[in-house]
Formats: sequence, structure tokens, C-alpha cells
Amino acid sequence: MRKLLLTGFEPFGGESVNPSWEIARSLDGEQVGGYLVVARQLPVIWNQALEVMEGLIDELSPDVIVAMGQSGGRAEICPERVAINVSDSPSADNAGVVMTDEPIGNGGPVAYWSTLSIKAMVAAMREAGVPARVSNTAGTYLCNHVMYGTLHLLTRRGLGIPSGFIHVPGLPEQMAPRSKGEPSLGLETQVRGIRAALLACTVG
Amino acid sequence: MRKLLLTGFEPFGGESVNPSWEIARSLDGEQVGGYLVVARQLPVIWNQALEVMEGLIDELSPDVIVAMGQSGGRAEICPERVAINVSDSPSADNAGVVMTDEPIGNGGPVAYWSTLSIKAMVAAMREAGVPARVSNTAGTYLCNHVMYGTLHLLTRRGLGIPSGFIHVPGLPEQMAPRSKGEPSLGLETQVRGIRAALLACTVG
Amino acid sequence: MRKLLLTGFEPFGGESVNPSWEIARSLDGEQVGGYLVVARQLPVIWNQALEVMEGLIDELSPDVIVAMGQSGGRAEICPERVAINVSDSPSADNAGVVMTDEPIGNGGPVAYWSTLSIKAMVAAMREAGVPARVSNTAGTYLCNHVMYGTLHLLTRRGLGIPSGFIHVPGLPEQMAPRSKGEPSLGLETQVRGIRAALLACTVG
Amino acid sequence: MRKLLLTGFEPFGGESVNPSWEIARSLDGEQVGGYLVVARQLPVIWNQALEVMEGLIDELSPDVIVAMGQSGGRAEICPERVAINVSDSPSADNAGVVMTDEPIGNGGPVAYWSTLSIKAMVAAMREAGVPARVSNTAGTYLCNHVMYGTLHLLTRRGLGIPSGFIHVPGLPEQMAPRSKGEPSLGLETQVRGIRAALLACTVG
Repeated sequence: MRKLLLTGFEPFGGESVNPSWEIARSLDGEQVGGYLVVARQLPVIWNQALEVMEGLIDELSPDVIVAMGQSGGRAEICPERVAINVSDSPSADNAGVVMTDEPIGNGGPVAYWSTLSIKAMVAAMREAGVPARVSNTAGTYLCNHVMYGTLHLLTRRGLGIPSGFIHVPGLPEQMAPRSKGEPSLGLETQVRGIRAALLACTVG
Repeated sequence: MRKLLLTGFEPFGGESVNPSWEIARSLDGEQVGGYLVVARQLPVIWNQALEVMEGLIDELSPDVIVAMGQSGGRAEICPERVAINVSDSPSADNAGVVMTDEPIGNGGPVAYWSTLSIKAMVAAMREAGVPARVSNTAGTYLCNHVMYGTLHLLTRRGLGIPSGFIHVPGLPEQMAPRSKGEPSLGLETQVRGIRAALLACTVG
Repeated sequence: MRKLLLTGFEPFGGESVNPSWEIARSLDGEQVGGYLVVARQLPVIWNQALEVMEGLIDELSPDVIVAMGQSGGRAEICPERVAINVSDSPSADNAGVVMTDEPIGNGGPVAYWSTLSIKAMVAAMREAGVPARVSNTAGTYLCNHVMYGTLHLLTRRGLGIPSGFIHVPGLPEQMAPRSKGEPSLGLETQVRGIRAALLACTVG
Repeated sequence: MRKLLLTGFEPFGGESVNPSWEIARSLDGEQVGGYLVVARQLPVIWNQALEVMEGLIDELSPDVIVAMGQSGGRAEICPERVAINVSDSPSADNAGVVMTDEPIGNGGPVAYWSTLSIKAMVAAMREAGVPARVSNTAGTYLCNHVMYGTLHLLTRRGLGIPSGFIHVPGLPEQMAPRSKGEPSLGLETQVRGIRAALLACTVG
């Protein structure tokens, strides 16, 4: 059976949970549209995230790759349209490293389009009653890093595997202790949305 | 068994669902902290909402009254601290009527405090992993109208029944078709939060 | 000539400037609608703000009192509709004191309406090209404290002096060093707005 | 004297003013850092904006090109980091035309970096007391269209002219009639910010 590699990140920034990983592991082992979902976790570490991704591609030979990460402040699930060739954030990774205007792929292009059907994914999530929209920026932290790096790797290797990234809102449990008006979406809702999105991007 | 009257509003503003009523009916018939939850719906009509509330008080003789309403744009469940003696909104009610600077209780005081334990309710919701905070304004539309009117009625009748209001976020299903960045919270999460809040306000 | 007492607060919360005071002193000595504007600064100290206000009323015998304060996060100038009888904030004042659910006026009513023409003020500011709206909560920090306390004092003394409160946005200069997306409005714009508001509330 | 072409857009979306053009014409004819600022207006029309830009490059032979556009909802002035090769918006242009997933430069790369010193521009604006930050998306409406198209044109022609785009907030005058909490910044503040940004990007 064809495999869909679904990644989430480990917790970061002082959080004890990361919704992207909670969603991934909730869907681990499910069959969606003729694909077996294989969930794996990525570290929030600049020097390791892409190495782990490369290892997973070698190990699993996935037919589709969907990476996910949390985006605090967003109220909707957002398939990303494009990844850009720069890592640049004042926020340190989980190893305490800060990146400033650092290219991800040496000699790589400025940007890669997602090769997932992002509009079909958004339509499917809305149909499933889950707020969603296309996003035009994956930021310049680890989410963009993994999205760009994976697309660059697949291109260099000549692998025509559809690949892209989805940003997800925080969980209510994460927002509850601080409650400063940040939006969140419950895990059940998010899992329902991502399941619909995966089905949409594996069709056709 | 003691009764807790839990009200939600009918849909309004072109919506086909109102989370306040969905929560109420999800909890209808449950026992929470020694109280039987009795859920009833209120109309979004200036001239009828308080008449219906008064009828429910006569019919049910509740021991606690918790009214709920939707507040678009809020990311958290918000017990209200205070209700003020004015109805004033450019938005028409479901009968097409607009109120401008209209007192709710003739000769009534400027405001009434909620007589629920709002801080205990917030603490209990957060403990249950649900984003919550005390709100200092219930607005000047039907939510405030029902909160003020109920407290005014109980005062005039000399009934020492604890009573107050909770604003709840929209549901993901409501936001999905438009997806303009408005926060929402799933019904499961909201029901879990309100259950915890009801338990907290019926203790002691 | 009749006098309009216009107060602003001293800086607080680590800021070096408070837009409410910058606006007040910009208008100090101006004549607006037949009133002389007299600007004075209030301390952000629970135990002193109302004492200073009372002293100013004794000293100046103002014919109108308009108090102002900064409200971080607001994009518009907001005349407040109502003040409530409670001080309650996790934020310490400039003397390091925290207030929790503390009544402002012992034996005072739950709330006082602003006795300024808040809707005329909003209309006048919009006419002058300045974003404005009526607010239904002055919060529970020092702004509400001064608004409630002043209205309570005037009532106890039987003084029919129109009095109320206006919340103002932060200044661009305050937001520039952090730039986290918080709205602001330039001093020139704010002064233009407050001048229009004062004119509106002194008419008739 | 070297020339800096500074463009703003005509009004769109039912507005009667566009802050980007108001800023441009306020700075028209000024000398900034050894450059003469030449302000010109671009139409909000998919088929014409880049033709006008190309004509201006031919006519003026500018040494630097800074294009600007309004971004409703933003509280800060945002130099854009990157432009992407797609026009895609449900909002029609001023000629009533809608673009959906349309490439801007046939055969062009996925994206171009701004060739302006965007971080120096942000630092200079903050230093001048104006809220500013780097943005990672210019959207997919006419702003991105002009940014991408201009960089693509300069590349095809082999012209090493620094070029980029700045998104600016709305004006208070635009927000005043609706006042729904959208941030704005006064023209004086915006002109001060853009002047500082132009100086920063023409240095060195």
C-alpha cells in the first residue's frame, strides 16, 4: 500500500505539547484514500530536522509527504503555498541556536511551490466544517526550513513525490493557562480537518 | 433535586446554528454538582427574550440560572462580571427591531453584578484545559439585555437565585465557510468548559 | 471663562511616555467651545489618583471633567459609556500595589454612566477623520478607578459637573521598538480627535 | 542627480484615497540621501500596472525603485522580503478583472528576493519612532504583482537597479467612517517612516 508520511514537530518554546505531533500520531496507521498514514516526529533543531526527514524518506520511501507545524496566533488550518530559501528568526531552536538570514539550500532557488493540491485541501477542510485557508508564508523558522529543505531534497534527487506543509493552530489546552485571547482549535477538530485535507491531496 | 436553568439563544444574524444553544442542549438532563441541568432556548427578540425567561422561572423554579450567548470574535469562554441598563445596537433582532439607547429596567439601577462565582468558573475552565477569562462587558445587544433583565427581575421579586451570563466563541463549523481569521472553539471543548464552569458555580 | 479639566496619566508599565498626558498637555490653555482647557496629570497609583482629582476639583472648580488614559491594543479613541465599582488587576500600579476585587466607592452603586455626550463625541471624531467608537468597558485598572471615583465624588457632593473618561491608543513611538502588530495613532491625529470630542461634549 | 522612483497605487476597493500614493506625492521632489525622489502613481489594474512601471523605467532611468501599496489590517510599515510568481485573488481590480492562480512572469522563477536593504529600512523606521517590521508575504494581489513583475523585468533586462516593495497601513481618515477596530497610521507618521526607510536603502 502506498504510504503518506505525516510529520509533526516536537514541542518547543516552553510548551509541553505540539498540536502538529498530536494530530500526526492520532492519524498514524489510518488509511486515507488508499494511502497508509505513517506519522513521525521531527526535532525543532535547525541542524537535525532535515537530516531526520532525509532519513525518513530513505527508510519509508513515502509516496506523499505532508509536514505540519504549529503557528501560534492562527485561527485556521493553513496549507502553505510556498517555501523560501532563508532561515531567520530571533527565536532559538530547542538546542539554543539562532539563525539569521541563513540560506537553507546552498545554490537553491529563492523558493519552491508546495506540490500538494492546497486549494483542494482547503475546500475539503471547509466542507468538513473546519476553518481553513491558503497561507502565502510559512515564516522563516523551522516550519519553512523543513518545507523548503524537503522540496529541495526531492528536487535534487529527482523524486517526484508530492510534498508540502500545513500550519495548524494551537490547542485549547495550550492557551487555557494564559488565556490572552489567542485562538485555538481542539484536537478532534484539527484531526478531522487534516484527515479531510490528506484525502483531498491524495485524490487524482 | 435542585435545578440549574441553562439557556442558549436561537440562531441569529443569518447563522443556522448558535453555539450557546448547542452547548445547552448537550448538557440538558445532566447532573452537575447536585443540580439537574434544564436547558431552554431563548429567542433573539427584544420583546420576547425576557418574557420567555420569566415564564421559565415560573415554570421551573430554578435554583441557579446561567444564560449563555455567542460572541463572535472571542477566542475564550467569558463569564460576564456585570450587566448594564441599556439596549443599544445597530444590529436588528430576529424580528427586525433595532434598539438605540433604550433602558431595560425602567427605574432600575445602572448595573447589576453577576451573582455567579465568575472567577471560580474561569479557574475551573482553565483547569479543564479550556481558554477562559472574566469579561467586563456583555455588550449592549440581547446578551446583556437578558443578563440585566434577569437580575433585575430576581431583585424585584426578592428571589435570591444566583444568576449570570457566559459568552461563548463561535463553532468551527460556523467559521469554516467564511474563514476570515475569526477564532472558534469546537462544541466538545465548549461543553467540557461549561460543564466545569457549572460545577464551579454550584459549589459552596 | 468656563473651565474644562482635562487629565492624562503619568507613564506606567515601563513606558517612558503616556499618550493621554501628551494629548492633555498639547491642548492645555486652548479654548474649545467657550471653555478653557486646563490639563493636569494624574498618578498611576491607586491610593493617590482620586485624591489628586479631588484636589483639582477644589482648586479649579471645573465646569466639565474629561479624564483620559491609554489602552494598549485599541486602534480607536473610545469614550467610555460606564464605570463600575471595582478595582481588579494583576498589574501593579506605579507604587507596586495590586488590587483584587476591591470596591472603589464604599456603599456606592454598581456603576455610573458617563455624563458626557459620548455618541456626539464619537460622531465628531469620525467627522474629523479620527477612528473612534463608544466603549462599554473602561476595564478594572486605574482608568475605571478614576472614572468611577470622580463620578461618585461628584454625586456625593451634589455637583452637576459633566464628567467622563476617554481611552486612547498608544503612540507610534511607543510601538516602534517592539513592533508586534499593536495598533497606534500619532499624537497629531489623537490631538485632533480629542479637540473635536471636547468641542462636541461642551456644546448644548 | 540620481533618481529614486517611488510609486503608490491609485485608490481601490471603494476607497477614495490610497495612503501609498499620498505618501509618494508627499515625498515627490525631495532629496533623500543624494537621490531625487520622483513619485508616480500606478493603476490597480492587472493588465496595466506593469506596463506603466516599464514605461516609467524607460522614461526616468531610475537608480532605485521603491513601490508601495496599502495593506488593510496591518499596524506597521512592512518592507517585503520576497515576491512570488502568482496572481490570485477573489478581489477584482479596478477594471473588474479577477485573477486566479495566474503566473506573472511566464517562465520566471518561483520568487525574487527584494533587492533593497529591508532590515536596515526597518531599523531606520523604528529609530524614527515608526512601527515597522519585515514581512514575508506581499500577498497575491496587485502589490505582489508589481513587486514580482518589476524584479523580473529588471532581471530580464540585466539592469542592476535595487528594487522592492513596502506595504503601508491605512490612514485614520479611511478607518474613521467605519471604525471596526482596524489599525491605521497618520500620513505624517507614514511619511516620516518612509523617508527614513528611503534614506536607509540608498546608503552604501
